[in-house]
Amino acid sequence: MNKNYIVPNEWSIVEEVFDTKNVKASESLFSIGNGSMGQRANFEEDYSGETLQGSYIGGVYYPDKTRVGWWKNGYPEYFAKVLNAPNWIGIHIQINGTNLDLNLCEVANFRRELNMKEGWLSRSFKATLKTGEQILVKTKRLISIELNEVGAIEYSITAVNFSGEITFSPYIDAGIVNEDSNYNEYFWETLQIVEGENKGSILSKTLKTEFHVATAMNVSFTLNNLKLEVLQETNIEEKSLTYSYKIDVSQGDVATIYKYGSYVSSLNYKNNELIEASFQNVQTASELRFEDLLNLQKQSWATIWRTADIVIEGDIKAQQGIRFNIFQLNQTYMGTDARLNIGPKGFTGEKYGGSTYWDTEAYCIPFYMGTKDAQVAKNLLLYRYNQLDKAIENAQKLGFTNGAALYPMVTMNGEECHNEWEITFEEIHRNGAMIYGIYNYVNYTNDFEYIPKFGLEVMIGVARFWYQRANFSAVKNQYVILGVTGPNEYENNVNNNFYTNYLAKWCIEYAVESLQKVKNEYPEDYSRVFAKASLTETETKEWLQVANNMYFPFSEKHNVYLQQDDFLDKELIPAAELSKKERPINQKWSWDRILRSCYIKQADVLQGMFFFEDKFTKQELERHFDFYEPLTVHESSLSPCVHSILAASIDRMPKAYEQYVRTARLDLDDYNHEVDEGCHITSMAGTWMSIVQGFGGMRVSEDGKLVFNPQIPKQWKSYSFTINFRNQILKIKVNQAKTIFELEGTHELQIKVNNKTIIVTPNNLVTV
Amino acid sequence: MNKNYIVPNEWSIVEEVFDTKNVKASESLFSIGNGSMGQRANFEEDYSGETLQGSYIGGVYYPDKTRVGWWKNGYPEYFAKVLNAPNWIGIHIQINGTNLDLNLCEVANFRRELNMKEGWLSRSFKATLKTGEQILVKTKRLISIELNEVGAIEYSITAVNFSGEITFSPYIDAGIVNEDSNYNEYFWETLQIVEGENKGSILSKTLKTEFHVATAMNVSFTLNNLKLEVLQETNIEEKSLTYSYKIDVSQGDVATIYKYGSYVSSLNYKNNELIEASFQNVQTASELRFEDLLNLQKQSWATIWRTADIVIEGDIKAQQGIRFNIFQLNQTYMGTDARLNIGPKGFTGEKYGGSTYWDTEAYCIPFYMGTKDAQVAKNLLLYRYNQLDKAIENAQKLGFTNGAALYPMVTMNGEECHNEWEITFEEIHRNGAMIYGIYNYVNYTNDFEYIPKFGLEVMIGVARFWYQRANFSAVKNQYVILGVTGPNEYENNVNNNFYTNYLAKWCIEYAVESLQKVKNEYPEDYSRVFAKASLTETETKEWLQVANNMYFPFSEKHNVYLQQDDFLDKELIPAAELSKKERPINQKWSWDRILRSCYIKQADVLQGMFFFEDKFTKQELERHFDFYEPLTVHESSLSPCVHSILAASIDRMPKAYEQYVRTARLDLDDYNHEVDEGCHITSMAGTWMSIVQGFGGMRVSEDGKLVFNPQIPKQWKSYSFTINFRNQILKIKVNQAKTIFELEGTHELQIKVNNKTIIVTPNNLVTV
Repeated sequence: MNKNYIVPNEWSIVEEVFDTKNVKASESLFSIGNGSMGQRANFEEDYSGETLQGSYIGGVYYPDKTRVGWWKNGYPEYFAKVLNAPNWIGIHIQINGTNLDLNLCEVANFRRELNMKEGWLSRSFKATLKTGEQILVKTKRLISIELNEVGAIEYSITAVNFSGEITFSPYIDAGIVNEDSNYNEYFWETLQIVEGENKGSILSKTLKTEFHVATAMNVSFTLNNLKLEVLQETNIEEKSLTYSYKIDVSQGDVATIYKYGSYVSSLNYKNNELIEASFQNVQTASELRFEDLLNLQKQSWATIWRTADIVIEGDIKAQQGIRFNIFQLNQTYMGTDARLNIGPKGFTGEKYGGSTYWDTEAYCIPFYMGTKDAQVAKNLLLYRYNQLDKAIENAQKLGFTNGAALYPMVTMNGEECHNEWEITFEEIHRNGAMIYGIYNYVNYTNDFEYIPKFGLEVMIGVARFWYQRANFSAVKNQYVILGVTGPNEYENNVNNNFYTNYLAKWCIEYAVESLQKVKNEYPEDYSRVFAKASLTETETKEWLQVANNMYFPFSEKHNVYLQQDDFLDKELIPAAELSKKERPINQKWSWDRILRSCYIKQADVLQGMFFFEDKFTKQELERHFDFYEPLTVHESSLSPCVHSILAASIDRMPKAYEQYVRTARLDLDDYNHEVDEGCHITSMAGTWMSIVQGFGGMRVSEDGKLVFNPQIPKQWKSYSFTINFRNQILKIKVNQAKTIFELEGTHELQIKVNNKTIIVTPNNLVTV
Repeated sequence: MNKNYIVPNEWSIVEEVFDTKNVKASESLFSIGNGSMGQRANFEEDYSGETLQGSYIGGVYYPDKTRVGWWKNGYPEYFAKVLNAPNWIGIHIQINGTNLDLNLCEVANFRRELNMKEGWLSRSFKATLKTGEQILVKTKRLISIELNEVGAIEYSITAVNFSGEITFSPYIDAGIVNEDSNYNEYFWETLQIVEGENKGSILSKTLKTEFHVATAMNVSFTLNNLKLEVLQETNIEEKSLTYSYKIDVSQGDVATIYKYGSYVSSLNYKNNELIEASFQNVQTASELRFEDLLNLQKQSWATIWRTADIVIEGDIKAQQGIRFNIFQLNQTYMGTDARLNIGPKGFTGEKYGGSTYWDTEAYCIPFYMGTKDAQVAKNLLLYRYNQLDKAIENAQKLGFTNGAALYPMVTMNGEECHNEWEITFEEIHRNGAMIYGIYNYVNYTNDFEYIPKFGLEVMIGVARFWYQRANFSAVKNQYVILGVTGPNEYENNVNNNFYTNYLAKWCIEYAVESLQKVKNEYPEDYSRVFAKASLTETETKEWLQVANNMYFPFSEKHNVYLQQDDFLDKELIPAAELSKKERPINQKWSWDRILRSCYIKQADVLQGMFFFEDKFTKQELERHFDFYEPLTVHESSLSPCVHSILAASIDRMPKAYEQYVRTARLDLDDYNHEVDEGCHITSMAGTWMSIVQGFGGMRVSEDGKLVFNPQIPKQWKSYSFTINFRNQILKIKVNQAKTIFELEGTHELQIKVNNKTIIVTPNNLVTV
């Protein structure tokens, strides 16, 4: 069964029982971060039980040497790994000389809370040591959004039944390792350890990539809330710096340590300025004190929630689930730095190399567009624009020429990080998502200028790729795309995957159409890009030749497009008829059996219809949904949201809700039995979409109008969400009976609701 | 360019120049072995240049932990590695205290000879040491066929320009490693080192598999051909045993060491008897002395050549090439032990795990049937029969039931050793080769009894596999086999590979037909097997339902069977039009590009037509040859031989000869630039077939008659070969003008030559 120990709560993730079996899962679920850095909810004090220690700095990675069974030409030599960073949170605690370790003492009244409204993590418990001492521990921790290189800890101990000595030994440890290392290598080298009075810093660098990072700490103490100066003992080892402070306490006393930490890296500073900058940060933090840092944090999160919150009435677990998803997405990516992106596990784990998948364009951009300023989504697009050269190199490695670009399946710096031929070389539909991201962004924001300034170059590189990747089939008398893997990774190396062919054709057409528009409206940009890309009019005509004659597999009998050429040779048995002991098939079946089965991992033909819903009739959507969804096993975290949205759009609310439930509490209820490794961050954006685009039925039509077809699951009383649409904030509340719109902005908005156009004026409620 | 330093010679492989760049290649080419043990031609004395040390014991392997990029369900945990064994040949040589090392001294008059007629390896050279001493070295080495656990070395040094001291330090080193290790582990543990007077032995065991091996040596000396007793100094280290012998020489003296070595293993002895058995072996060898061992060796090889030799007149390089192939095949496998098989590199290198591929059934069995007693081929079949249980387990791992058997792609002990899903799980045509091997054997030897006694069980397991692996395609209204890789590994995960479907259908039909015959002729065996396999009459009917309705992709336009369903979607551009710098494509192109290209690695549809030539008309063969051969890049060592044979059978002698040349001297001329890693043993059987079945046009028709359609390449004056056919020896000599048959045996033979039946009586020449 799924884990079910998280206490339902509207605004917090709460755990009320200490169970060593849940420690790793909770480390993931209670993670905190600020988009630039983040960490798993590891304990500050020592813990000898099972744990995955993880603290991460955005953009700092390590190129681990690729491990393969059999080398194939074209594989990348290296695989950029998410990198566990030096530990700044650690505090060894001793009570009368005995180490505090929750794995080795009696724990009572344990409570952990991740307060999502205000952005902090707390923990309290009563511990009885083997030696008899009882203590009450209360901790609070945050990673500051305002001071985005700073974290802070408040750690209090009450001497319940004894008088004696409490030793706090805060430390920085740069001798950390990755669990996920191909050859058990060390990724970090310690360069310098600087000590000082109640403060210290370690300068380390990553091997190979040579990112330099200074990790600093600053500590102070109170006894019964009164500031206390304590004698410092210093212990410097090869890769760590530890201070020890002994405090004499009487029974009932409360001794507290404040530990401020900071990461600064060579992404933002010169190497020789890092130590100083790290000291500056912890100095600033300690001067503000924990309380003020906490107040700043509350303000920062209030600002985020104002435009991002979704309120669900009548279902507290659903409420907790959706807020958890929104909270984690914000912890992972704030949108202020175009060098960063949204890793599949965010700052909650180290599994999966790279930070960026097509998930960003296909799932995450809508969330960030809907809840933040347009600049945030633009930064995500610029990330790819800045990596265009690498995408061209990547395509060259695979034999493409003339500036054709293939974006990597997984990347950190633009280079490919994946090494399975059927994915790396063949799951090329990702290239289409890059363009869909631009299209989606331009429609939503109306910022067409992004195309002449940046997007057009990407569109040309991708169009060239599709043009070269298709070939003419004499037997079909059309262009085909052979040897691909679609979004359904349960089929590999298939021919004419509908989704891939559709995107290929569309990418070319959209590129040519955009070229025309840029030519007319931005002639200078047109000339610049035309020259830079060495484009000719003949070339675009050749592209169109392919696009206009693209082949799509279609079944007359079923009246549906086929997922790939030979799909109907398979035995089509609904997934519901599979016995429970065979599920999930990716754990129970051998790979070949999965491949030749009809079972679909995640939306494939339907992914295309989700992207381009406007281009299909409702009847087409229904037919394809009814053909493919029963064959879909939803074994990707990205699957249920798309199906939920499509089901809602064809008025199948029970199915839409069923699929929504599978995505909303995926990690909180640990459906996939792997939350101990980290959370599924990118699919959380899909959950947001399931409400806003699914139940809320929100679209932006191609002419830039907002469209709503709101529905409500019968399990809920109401739900409301907020949309940042072209710099105005629109609030939508859907009841069983009506929908209410409220606009914060400066000018009225025409909205199409259930096919009727309404006008919403600022600061007035409109009920439909 | 290819290496071209081997001196043409009818009976020997000869090298006359010492070049450090050729050392590793020569180590492979000059390898010696006796089917039970073998070794690369490493120098006895120290060598500090590039070398691949390798000495191997048949059947002794190590299960190396699998290394993969991404784990797939069904992958084997371990990979049986060919195992480098303790070194018994080593002799450190010192001249007046200076080490002899060909990498560090001046070498003149170097000559190395592998005498294939008599089965020994010799080396001679003049070395001038940095310290000025000149010596003349002559060595001879053999691995005895008669005493198949024994090797012997004669190593003579003439003091050319000095008087002084020569130190011989023969040793056994059990501290050896594999180059091909996934995790740089040691594979061996040293258990015991036993010293003695001029003899010693080390007992070691392999980790995990716990094979125990004793490696012994025995040494003696002569000075100017007179026996010499020399004082022995002993040095025992953790994993090695070294004796040192100092001999005072005057200028012109010849000092000689004889070193006899032996491997004995727990495959043949109890662990506690190994040391004693190894001593016994080297004692026997030393009593026989080197000369007698050499005489025995000449006799053994004379016996082998009597039934295996192929003589080519008018082309000395072709003569050398074919004898090299026949020689290496015999060194690799003698056929006396059903636990052994034919590794792809034999005893010439450690690359590729496992010892057994489908090469054995598809390529090697005809050679061993043609040149040895029927028992040898029978042992190869029994190897698979004995591994049927493992094949059933292997199929179970992939989801098959009811005794369905899938033989492994690569194996040592019956367990799968390969770990690429597209090969391990999908290159299932190998299962058909198991049955083809039986069919071929029974036709050739007329030993039908093999089927009721052994083969039938294998046939049932394989038929069950095909029955379960096919599925009914509603759209084709026939049975299809989805997701396979054919012999052409340049297509992966394709549907309805003609070759696979053809074999599947044939395997079922042959099984049912054999069942019927066994039922009639061997009722007791029938009952036994029927019960053991829990077979029912209904079940075989269900098999036939699949076989009788098997789908085969066919093109009306080209009038050929298609390699797979979607083959005609590819751009069909002859390989000849590829630019030279793109060849070989497996080194120049990324894997996806290869997969979606039309280029064929090795015979695929044509492999089926080669196996079942009788079942296709000559016109069909021509059409398929003309369609597929131009698209074939022959980048497998197994490709040219099949094409050569088919070309000959459709009277395309220039093409047949062109393809023959590519296979005959593949290693001697190092076409693939990899002979330094070892020789391509299994393809050598293909070379033999190219002459006997190709130019010689030999077949055994289904009614058990010998058929010949001999032709001769215009480059040759004549060629002759020998066939052991049902215990009679038939010699065939083909001239430009005529063919001469000579039979050694007891009863006349009816042979069909060029469609006319002739009668050959024992000891008479018949000329056609």
